[in-house]
Amino acid sequence: MFIQSDIQLPCFAVIFSSVKGLEDDSYEEMAETMNRLVQLQPGFLGMESVLDDEGHGITVCYWRSLEDIKRWKEVEIHKLAQSQGKREWYKEYAVRVVEVKESYWHSL
Amino acid sequence: MFIQSDIQLPCFAVIFSSVKGLEDDSYEEMAETMNRLVQLQPGFLGMESVLDDEGHGITVCYWRSLEDIKRWKEVEIHKLAQSQGKREWYKEYAVRVVEVKESYWHSL
Repeated sequence: MFIQSDIQLPCFAVIFSSVKGLEDDSYEEMAETMNRLVQLQPGFLGMESVLDDEGHGITVCYWRSLEDIKRWKEVEIHKLAQSQGKREWYKEYAVRVVEVKESYWHSL
Repeated sequence: MFIQSDIQLPCFAVIFSSVKGLEDDSYEEMAETMNRLVQLQPGFLGMESVLDDEGHGITVCYWRSLEDIKRWKEVEIHKLAQSQGKREWYKEYAVRVVEVKESYWHSL
């Protein structure tokens, strides 16, 4: 499932836009670990993620509260992933913490 | 340029997550027209967009205010694109209107 159809307000999100360098096994492994872990975090509501073959990626994670976002940011292995990402995997990235004001979903 | 490095707060954004059907010339043409037009709208600050080869896409458009977002939503040719998108191009999509609370940018 790519699109989170059941996001209920009030909620918050983190938009992570990134430009990756070359593929790297250490990245794949860490990304998988993070994907598994984030889903176990309190307040995690869902995630939408796209990566194209030029290494441009956007991931949106939805959260119940700003406190839940902060808590996940401080999880030790996630901090390790963040610093390794900064040092090795990403040429450039932006992180935006946002409050969701409206949400619509449509399906054929 | 993929990542908007100079987004200044306060600002708002629209996150458009979509699953596209098969490629279609009418889509390509309209998408190009919308890309050109949106950049001329008052309050438009920038856009980040990724589409993978399975047709999963996320586009984030940044805006100065909620009024600017509303105004763009009501532009006639954009309304046409929205209804054609719903009818022909997208299998599924979600639209989230958000307020950006924090923004970081990092580059090597």
